[in-house]
Amino acid sequence: MVRVGILGATGYTAAELLRILLRHPHVRVTVATSRQQRTRIDQVHPALRGRIDLWCEDLSPEAVAERADCVFCALPHGASFSVVPALVERGCRVIDLSADYRLHDAAVYREWYGLEHGDPQRLGEAVYGLPELPVRRARITDARLIANPGCYTSTSILALAPLVAGGHVRREGIVIDAKSGVSGAGRTPKPHTLFCECNESVSAYAVGRHRHTPEIEQELSEVAGAAVQVVFTPHLMPMDRGILATIYTDPLTDRTETQWLDLYREYYRGSPFVRVTEALPATKDVAGTNFFDVTVRRHSGKLVVLACLDNLIKGAAGVAVQNFNLMYGFEETTALL
Amino acid sequence: MVRVGILGATGYTAAELLRILLRHPHVRVTVATSRQQRTRIDQVHPALRGRIDLWCEDLSPEAVAERADCVFCALPHGASFSVVPALVERGCRVIDLSADYRLHDAAVYREWYGLEHGDPQRLGEAVYGLPELPVRRARITDARLIANPGCYTSTSILALAPLVAGGHVRREGIVIDAKSGVSGAGRTPKPHTLFCECNESVSAYAVGRHRHTPEIEQELSEVAGAAVQVVFTPHLMPMDRGILATIYTDPLTDRTETQWLDLYREYYRGSPFVRVTEALPATKDVAGTNFFDVTVRRHSGKLVVLACLDNLIKGAAGVAVQNFNLMYGFEETTALL
Amino acid sequence: MVRVGILGATGYTAAELLRILLRHPHVRVTVATSRQQRTRIDQVHPALRGRIDLWCEDLSPEAVAERADCVFCALPHGASFSVVPALVERGCRVIDLSADYRLHDAAVYREWYGLEHGDPQRLGEAVYGLPELPVRRARITDARLIANPGCYTSTSILALAPLVAGGHVRREGIVIDAKSGVSGAGRTPKPHTLFCECNESVSAYAVGRHRHTPEIEQELSEVAGAAVQVVFTPHLMPMDRGILATIYTDPLTDRTETQWLDLYREYYRGSPFVRVTEALPATKDVAGTNFFDVTVRRHSGKLVVLACLDNLIKGAAGVAVQNFNLMYGFEETTALL
Amino acid sequence: MVRVGILGATGYTAAELLRILLRHPHVRVTVATSRQQRTRIDQVHPALRGRIDLWCEDLSPEAVAERADCVFCALPHGASFSVVPALVERGCRVIDLSADYRLHDAAVYREWYGLEHGDPQRLGEAVYGLPELPVRRARITDARLIANPGCYTSTSILALAPLVAGGHVRREGIVIDAKSGVSGAGRTPKPHTLFCECNESVSAYAVGRHRHTPEIEQELSEVAGAAVQVVFTPHLMPMDRGILATIYTDPLTDRTETQWLDLYREYYRGSPFVRVTEALPATKDVAGTNFFDVTVRRHSGKLVVLACLDNLIKGAAGVAVQNFNLMYGFEETTALL
Repeated sequence: MVRVGILGATGYTAAELLRILLRHPHVRVTVATSRQQRTRIDQVHPALRGRIDLWCEDLSPEAVAERADCVFCALPHGASFSVVPALVERGCRVIDLSADYRLHDAAVYREWYGLEHGDPQRLGEAVYGLPELPVRRARITDARLIANPGCYTSTSILALAPLVAGGHVRREGIVIDAKSGVSGAGRTPKPHTLFCECNESVSAYAVGRHRHTPEIEQELSEVAGAAVQVVFTPHLMPMDRGILATIYTDPLTDRTETQWLDLYREYYRGSPFVRVTEALPATKDVAGTNFFDVTVRRHSGKLVVLACLDNLIKGAAGVAVQNFNLMYGFEETTALL
Repeated sequence: MVRVGILGATGYTAAELLRILLRHPHVRVTVATSRQQRTRIDQVHPALRGRIDLWCEDLSPEAVAERADCVFCALPHGASFSVVPALVERGCRVIDLSADYRLHDAAVYREWYGLEHGDPQRLGEAVYGLPELPVRRARITDARLIANPGCYTSTSILALAPLVAGGHVRREGIVIDAKSGVSGAGRTPKPHTLFCECNESVSAYAVGRHRHTPEIEQELSEVAGAAVQVVFTPHLMPMDRGILATIYTDPLTDRTETQWLDLYREYYRGSPFVRVTEALPATKDVAGTNFFDVTVRRHSGKLVVLACLDNLIKGAAGVAVQNFNLMYGFEETTALL
Repeated sequence: MVRVGILGATGYTAAELLRILLRHPHVRVTVATSRQQRTRIDQVHPALRGRIDLWCEDLSPEAVAERADCVFCALPHGASFSVVPALVERGCRVIDLSADYRLHDAAVYREWYGLEHGDPQRLGEAVYGLPELPVRRARITDARLIANPGCYTSTSILALAPLVAGGHVRREGIVIDAKSGVSGAGRTPKPHTLFCECNESVSAYAVGRHRHTPEIEQELSEVAGAAVQVVFTPHLMPMDRGILATIYTDPLTDRTETQWLDLYREYYRGSPFVRVTEALPATKDVAGTNFFDVTVRRHSGKLVVLACLDNLIKGAAGVAVQNFNLMYGFEETTALL
Repeated sequence: MVRVGILGATGYTAAELLRILLRHPHVRVTVATSRQQRTRIDQVHPALRGRIDLWCEDLSPEAVAERADCVFCALPHGASFSVVPALVERGCRVIDLSADYRLHDAAVYREWYGLEHGDPQRLGEAVYGLPELPVRRARITDARLIANPGCYTSTSILALAPLVAGGHVRREGIVIDAKSGVSGAGRTPKPHTLFCECNESVSAYAVGRHRHTPEIEQELSEVAGAAVQVVFTPHLMPMDRGILATIYTDPLTDRTETQWLDLYREYYRGSPFVRVTEALPATKDVAGTNFFDVTVRRHSGKLVVLACLDNLIKGAAGVAVQNFNLMYGFEETTALL
């Protein structure tokens, strides 16, 4: 039984983590932290009433390390790098769901997050936790610190990896038009995430400056073995959860749609959460699951990739538990089907 | 006072038409038709209770022509070309909201709609009713038959016209990623427009084969004076109304965002329903109005155009009344603000 | 042309007020105030872009009084009674959309709002602005200060007035089960009005202690000429706007449904915004309008009244303009159809 | 391993059943039927892609009985009683999710469903499958035929059973104001369940004549040992799933809210899916779960009960599996947490 701690237990991602971990036969959640709210977990997340008897506490990382073997860190970026070092040094294995350890380069972090990174030496050590990428998967098993990927990032990388890995598309000017539910914006009240602002509305935001951009390019470049450049545009959709990415690429080789799909199936052979489909994917079909659905269409000279996942699960809490399973030698799908 | 008839009065577009026309000081709606339902208009459209005392009738075009000076035809494609000739021949001016008279070429119509056009000789006579296009506006005033544009089409054309008119972007490979509310799919019950199928879901549909594609290309090519080719992908959003198009172009000239916006402002000078904005547009801000909002962003070498309108109003009923106003010499904004 | 000012111009109600007043042929909006935001109105309300050239200012009531003949006060309760006296004393006519002048009794105000009323002497002077109530309508014409009714309140009172006026139902134990869209909760970010909290959820709130309760009882008691007691339960629905009240009464007289409907029709004869319907009302049919729809059903010994309106319009901004029209002798429906 | 069959496998309830049963360690789904669609299950329910390899077949009950030990019958009312006899006679245990075996009296069935019951002699044998009712639970274990309760019914009965069992409230004039998501209306396309009809709208329907009424009264009367009469009003909410019932009763005994809650806790001791809460319940907190949440409020002389569940799970597929678990001696919560 692995003793698990959750830092930042009041957000939507933490709620999903708890829901999943409560189904995990080899996990006991022993500690949950919050700076603001010292209440029972089920008062913060009423959906968990009757499922868990735990309080949110305001604890130091040292205190957490005494009660947990593995810590899921669901803090905001900038807060993670202040607590992760103490956890790792005390022997905890850490799965960090913030952006703090995703980028390899502290200068890029500073540029996009406007912060000096507080733990830059550990950037090289952290393993980017996208287990479907062969280059990442091998290292996850032994990782002490996982940088859990962003939601837009996972969608985009998984959608493009088979193409850029084989050099099948132009590596520049890849258009990623992504549509997300509102839960990705978090639970802190802000004007633009009020019901009456989001409901019955669709809009783009952060055009050209969304922070998942360098993460997408970093990982895809590693997969490709050469620089990949994307045009990433996120949009807010009036729904709770789900991301659909519609991706426009310029193919360099000529294949039928069936052949393209076969290429995806081959690349993701052995990945239990990737579903290569012939039908057009819909976010509803992955909502509440750890699945990633993807298809392709040839269209007016472009190769269009359509892909979706649940941003809170495959895009956050689910892949975190998937990484956890690999780290501890459990069946990869444990608690995730 | 113009006597107005509405053919196909039971759908969502007709409801909007009626709502707008009831505010029009120079209009009297004298006749409404439906093949299926012979009920009071306000039973079909309860929102209009107390506003209008009219029944849906199953009438021949000849009978309609006796009671109306101008006819808005809100029938499905394939049905319009069966009634429009009789109306026009009897002296009615017709604003056809179907796709039947939008394409200049009967062969293109056959290819995309799978039908032999029943009135091909009138394709040349019909005026494409997008009054913001200088080349169209002049002819609308005297038109006897208006082909009212499609909703995706208007969004796409208005978003791109200033760019292709001046040769400012590459004319090939223009990516139009469009997101629409469900009302665009009409009021006939179909499995995919059920609440529980659309709600909390986002998906693409008809990738590479949506019928608004040839219409977009036809009009933009005319504006450009040379062939324009687009990659158009429609998506269904969980909301009633609104279309947002995110359009990715390759700029051929170098300008700042401010200069691009000025180019739009200049092109649409005198167009009361076009709002060139600095902020990113949201469908909510145009819902229920005849406005078209547009902005641009330079982003990773692309010039991204973001544009939206209400598919039932500026994308259908509203622009129809705007055309009507121009045809009859009324103030362009009458009943539309 | 009446010069109109709006205090508290950044909320949802103010947006509706502006939208309606921009259509009013006899109104010029000359001043808009906000304590927080000194921005252009159309930056706060992007839907109004291109419609109005006005800035939010932080002004004293004295300064407002110099630029406006009539002031719509859309401030929170507790803020209105601080500015209304200065406005009235300088000759402005005031339509107050807060709760501050609705209750006749300062002690009841203190009990329900937890505040000492700052202008108790004016409670008797203010006219409760529900023009469909004969007793109120007469006084609205000459009023200097209108207490514009609450949204739940209008729905409940209009649904019950014909019954209690004639003594047709028991005056105790009237169950009002009310369902409201989220816009009624205002535009200030709060945890419970976030999209992801409201969407896909239905719940009751403030059971037994909602502040519209004393207002409903006060007005119905006046209509009845004897104390009326209600059991009022509000619920939050996942939609922008609209209130549906399902009301359970014990009839004291025996009538058919048709006879009950006739009683309603008779009571509301001459009320252009009340629609007595045979069909069950739906909030969608009144959304965006100033209509109030109502029907009745006999059911298991109860007389069930079902009624709805748009909380931002007939429940707030629309009835405010209706009152304005009556105060200034304009046609009651001006700018409201 | 129990071999399970599902009749009527294309609807929303069947999708939930499959999702739950795929998690059940002692179940193998061996057969699924549909009259219309002979396609793979995951084409009908794309969310199940990669989870199940099964086709919908059009089979006789005899053929089904050869391949299944237990059959979940998710057919419409009127269709169930045509196939259940053959299944039961061949030794299958049947959990019928239609209304066909819920009412004890064929005359009542005829009155409310407008059909002559085709298998009236089995009405007495079928066990009403609400395991939280002590009187029902005992018989479920040995049942050959379970009449799985309706969704509104379960909500109403569970909310009221503790009160009527002890004679704590008046048994007449109990007002049940119920609000439901749209999935309760099924997957067959109908005009009133289109997205654009339901979205942004709230309305009552079938006032005084909803078919769950006799079922509620039958079961509550049995619990009370005397006739219980309710005023039941269903409403449609713009959301996928969830029912909230707000119930107004006249208490006959005097207790504090805490004492009322204790009474509920005592009644439901040992019921793992009932959560008696102090906070007001919200449908979101039970969505996707088999929980039933309930609280009470004293309010203006009434005792108000507020209760909710997920109509597709605790109101249909979940309670069906709960019954299945009891029938086969599995842990009651298997596959349901």
